Amino acid sequence: MSSMSHPADENIETKEMDSRSLTSSQSQEPYVHKVGVPPKQNLFKEFQYTVKETFFSDDPLRPFKDQTKSRKFVLGIEAIFPILSWGRTYNLKKFRGDLIAGLTIASLCIPQDIGYSKLANLSPQYGLYSSFVPPLIYALMGSSRDIAIGPVAVVSLLLGTLLQNEIDPNTNPTEYRRLAFTATFFAGITQATLGVFRLGFLIDFLSHAAIVGFMGGAAITIALQQLKGFLGIEKFTRKTDIISVMSSVFSSAHHGWNWQTILIGSTFLAFLLFAKYIGKKSQKLFWVPAIAPLISVVLSTLFVYITRADKHGVAIVKHIEKGINPSSVKEIYFTGNYLGKGVRIGIVAGMIALTEAIAIGRTFASMKDYQLDGNKEMVALGAMNVVGSMTSCYVATGSFSRSAVNFMAGCETAVSNIVMSVVVLLTLQFITPLFKYTPNAILASIIICAVINLVDYKAAILIWKIDKFDFVACMGAFFGVVFASVEIGLLIAVSISFAKILLQVTRPRTAILGKIPRTTVYRNIQQYPEATRVPGVLIIRVDSAIYFSNSNYVKERILRWLMDEEERVNRDYQTRIQFLIVEMSPVTDIDTSGIHALEELFRSLQKREVQLVLANPGPLVIDKLHTSNFANFLGEDKIFLTVAEAVSYCSPKLAEEP
Amino acid sequence: MSSMSHPADENIETKEMDSRSLTSSQSQEPYVHKVGVPPKQNLFKEFQYTVKETFFSDDPLRPFKDQTKSRKFVLGIEAIFPILSWGRTYNLKKFRGDLIAGLTIASLCIPQDIGYSKLANLSPQYGLYSSFVPPLIYALMGSSRDIAIGPVAVVSLLLGTLLQNEIDPNTNPTEYRRLAFTATFFAGITQATLGVFRLGFLIDFLSHAAIVGFMGGAAITIALQQLKGFLGIEKFTRKTDIISVMSSVFSSAHHGWNWQTILIGSTFLAFLLFAKYIGKKSQKLFWVPAIAPLISVVLSTLFVYITRADKHGVAIVKHIEKGINPSSVKEIYFTGNYLGKGVRIGIVAGMIALTEAIAIGRTFASMKDYQLDGNKEMVALGAMNVVGSMTSCYVATGSFSRSAVNFMAGCETAVSNIVMSVVVLLTLQFITPLFKYTPNAILASIIICAVINLVDYKAAILIWKIDKFDFVACMGAFFGVVFASVEIGLLIAVSISFAKILLQVTRPRTAILGKIPRTTVYRNIQQYPEATRVPGVLIIRVDSAIYFSNSNYVKERILRWLMDEEERVNRDYQTRIQFLIVEMSPVTDIDTSGIHALEELFRSLQKREVQLVLANPGPLVIDKLHTSNFANFLGEDKIFLTVAEAVSYCSPKLAEEP
Repeated sequence: MSSMSHPADENIETKEMDSRSLTSSQSQEPYVHKVGVPPKQNLFKEFQYTVKETFFSDDPLRPFKDQTKSRKFVLGIEAIFPILSWGRTYNLKKFRGDLIAGLTIASLCIPQDIGYSKLANLSPQYGLYSSFVPPLIYALMGSSRDIAIGPVAVVSLLLGTLLQNEIDPNTNPTEYRRLAFTATFFAGITQATLGVFRLGFLIDFLSHAAIVGFMGGAAITIALQQLKGFLGIEKFTRKTDIISVMSSVFSSAHHGWNWQTILIGSTFLAFLLFAKYIGKKSQKLFWVPAIAPLISVVLSTLFVYITRADKHGVAIVKHIEKGINPSSVKEIYFTGNYLGKGVRIGIVAGMIALTEAIAIGRTFASMKDYQLDGNKEMVALGAMNVVGSMTSCYVATGSFSRSAVNFMAGCETAVSNIVMSVVVLLTLQFITPLFKYTPNAILASIIICAVINLVDYKAAILIWKIDKFDFVACMGAFFGVVFASVEIGLLIAVSISFAKILLQVTRPRTAILGKIPRTTVYRNIQQYPEATRVPGVLIIRVDSAIYFSNSNYVKERILRWLMDEEERVNRDYQTRIQFLIVEMSPVTDIDTSGIHALEELFRSLQKREVQLVLANPGPLVIDKLHTSNFANFLGEDKIFLTVAEAVSYCSPKLAEEP
Repeated sequence: MSSMSHPADENIETKEMDSRSLTSSQSQEPYVHKVGVPPKQNLFKEFQYTVKETFFSDDPLRPFKDQTKSRKFVLGIEAIFPILSWGRTYNLKKFRGDLIAGLTIASLCIPQDIGYSKLANLSPQYGLYSSFVPPLIYALMGSSRDIAIGPVAVVSLLLGTLLQNEIDPNTNPTEYRRLAFTATFFAGITQATLGVFRLGFLIDFLSHAAIVGFMGGAAITIALQQLKGFLGIEKFTRKTDIISVMSSVFSSAHHGWNWQTILIGSTFLAFLLFAKYIGKKSQKLFWVPAIAPLISVVLSTLFVYITRADKHGVAIVKHIEKGINPSSVKEIYFTGNYLGKGVRIGIVAGMIALTEAIAIGRTFASMKDYQLDGNKEMVALGAMNVVGSMTSCYVATGSFSRSAVNFMAGCETAVSNIVMSVVVLLTLQFITPLFKYTPNAILASIIICAVINLVDYKAAILIWKIDKFDFVACMGAFFGVVFASVEIGLLIAVSISFAKILLQVTRPRTAILGKIPRTTVYRNIQQYPEATRVPGVLIIRVDSAIYFSNSNYVKERILRWLMDEEERVNRDYQTRIQFLIVEMSPVTDIDTSGIHALEELFRSLQKREVQLVLANPGPLVIDKLHTSNFANFLGEDKIFLTVAEAVSYCSPKLAEEP
């Protein structure tokens, strides 16, 4: 019986310590500290608080507080067009940074745009169009200083895949393009709507891990698609999964590959990769990989023009429309069968574009430590795509690679986007005919080189280390994209993300607590093996709000802990469990189902002759325990401020019956 | 400055107390207790644990532990057919209880079945069929002792509404019936599948509040539908919303109502309500409302037969097929267009039927204190509906009203269902022709009387008191059903339930903590107004796991608390905030996004010259903080076991700069 006496002694020590620290002033009453019941909240105030935390958690109206009406109006206009605010302090020094950054990203975006428009099954000029209008609108309305706007690889691929499921771009190019503009329009509407109704938090439902997997998979898929241009294959599969693509590549190996194309492509790919390597080696040389693509385009175009390699089967751009964006207002489908399809595709593409842009915006904002209002960003991105859809642009968003270059080139404000936009304008007006002889293989090399960075294997390794479930989500999305299609991958990513959320709310964790020696602190005995159980008392902590989604589980789990513990106690001939203390510190809220579960728990315990005791219920919980009358039902004297107090209440009452 | 000195003094006191209680044994080191890092878990074990908690949280395999193979086999068979287990101890005394209960629920179910089958737009015998086969199957496989199986009002209405959206029951009765069997088959498959794959927790996603609202709304809708039979209206709307029904009722007021019908109906409705009242007054007289419906049917049938009131426009049942259930295996659509529709309707009806049955099962199990395995129940209910669909039954489930009667009549086991089933068999074989003259008005009165109990206004009031958001869900479902349709109401119920879950995970609560005087306990200062802030230190508790869905919010919310606090401190000329302690006790888990958020928080705080300190991270969190290297990045010495220790680390380091 020596094993018993020790914890019992310690228990008395606890009690003494508790009473010493807690009842020093009022020695009549054994427990000084009542669990606080917060003052009854006004219903309207409570509602206001919830709405505020849900939709205005970033406190966007803080600057408007205590201002005159006219000042509020000015602030409101400035909130929609931040350029009016930061424009006032704009100066030549900042412009210098923006000019250099703008020129750099322009040189990077022009060849990328031409390539990306192919991913979307659109003619090359549409890529350039999308790098002209949207950046201008963003510069007026956006609040990120570092983001570089334009078409991006993943969204182009996604849009191309979704669109070609509906219309064949080769046989019906006009309808296809019209549907693309329709989707772009509704992508913009989706983005702006989410922003206006402050539903920006919806994009947080796509987990970081799922995005890493999805992006990596999309990058592999995009790179595989480039094999067509890179190897000079004419007949190529329309599917994007790795098996179709590889069989398409190898079946055309004997007569479909063009060695001149491969030579040009691989030479310049080597050059680009080398440039990238240099850029990574020295941060100062960041401009080397940034301008390498344009240099490749110029050199290869010249080479093809001189050697007329296009006559030997080297595929070239051939034709690219000259002049700036024509209006496309009338091309958008506002009625008919394609309207619904456009809306659906637009919503998907818009959400993904948003996720990418917000992720970029947040990353750079945190690096330079400025606040970014996600919802305001969404309005800006949405407006830019709506205007874009009317000026022959397809979905534009923030580009990871170009934003990084923009940042490193020392951009100061969104003016770098304006500079880029102007360069693209000049290109469209004067230079496009020169792209005629640009070999497709170069564009393929540029795209391959641009997307390999999206395969973030380091992040994947970290995810594996930190959270295995996250890793499953990451790999699910990755393999879904690579082996099935972008849509399937996306679906997997979203589903796994949701499954994780649902798991989190249905299966909250619970823990058995023990007393850490020489303190009055009770902690999880799995984490602190030195913590000792209090004989006759089982202390369980529930680690989540108790809601309908988990109330039943929580009740059953607690009973299961009790059964396990009773088994152990019986086996070891220890004191029978007579008290069950539920530590409720982490239980932030409880609803009707939760109260029912507690009542059922109380009744089950009663039948087993175990008393239920609660420790430290939070403000909402104690309020609801009172309103529902459960506090009376249980007995007010069984609710304590701390576990230590609860234990010192239980211990002396234990009937010793080993 | 007197306001400052007081908390500062107290602070010293805290420190002293902390060191006294914590460092009594090792006086060299100021902080004895390290935050425990749990032993690295084996990946497979971790996975096993997660799977167990998710799918086997009710520990269904406990009885199988430490048993021989043959014993395990027997236990397995008994798990599927619990009757083999409880049948062995069955005795005459139990049978007496079951016999009385069975006869009582049989007398209640026969008139109800005939009425409910009308709600499902099926001929009256199908209601009786569904009270014959399913209860037998359930008695073999089910584990609830109190549930009474058969057609129920809400599921009949739901099925009727969903089916008639696809096929008109008046013009195509055969196809309609075939689709009904198809839906029943897939309802059973859905239920059994959820059970087999242990996905029973999915039904927990429909909150108690949403169910209360949905049931109440369905009851009103069902009662309104009875106005057709009750008033003797011939032309009646097919819609179920209150506006269509009432306009249909009043537009037929002049020539469509039949006074004889109304007279019969209201007389017996008064009788039934009176019987109900008696039953409520005295628990002993529970049998009065239970047999009143059958008495009404007998009396009114006799009355109509004698007076030939049917010749004066009193609508009667007219024809009801004699004989037991014919086979309907060949009537189920396993191919073609209707297959998909049957599957869809089956899934919806099956889930709702399941929700009702499980709720009943759990209620009575907790009243008699026996355990109910939700997943096993689902398999039983599913098997019963699959068999039912092959024997001309439509979706059966547990009925609230009849189960309550069963319970009060003293049922002991599922044998009461067998007794009921036998009575229904005899009725089908011998008595059905006698129902020919039963007036429809009586059936309407019986149904009205049965469903009014589903309008659980007391529960709604309690919900209002406890949780306003729940009340919105409840009312949303209620008004959705009443003013739109059952499907819309259901959709609203599910959506609001999900919205609540999502809100819970995206917007976790945070609280500022203060020290409760004369203790080392730190609590929410809103709940405990006497708790005092520690000058120069801001203590924030985060009340949820930090996951991708809330990591960004948590970070921003903490920074907002800091900004608010800094404003307050500046205004009052108090010590500048130099330490931010994040109390992580409730943070049960963290993922990659969460770690990123902490890193960003750390950097933002660094720029503001505020030091980040963590208190009491749980086992999973501390493990991940180490794996991700954040613990090193932050500094191991800034992670403490308790807030009190963290405070006593911070306080002496404060540079006094008011």
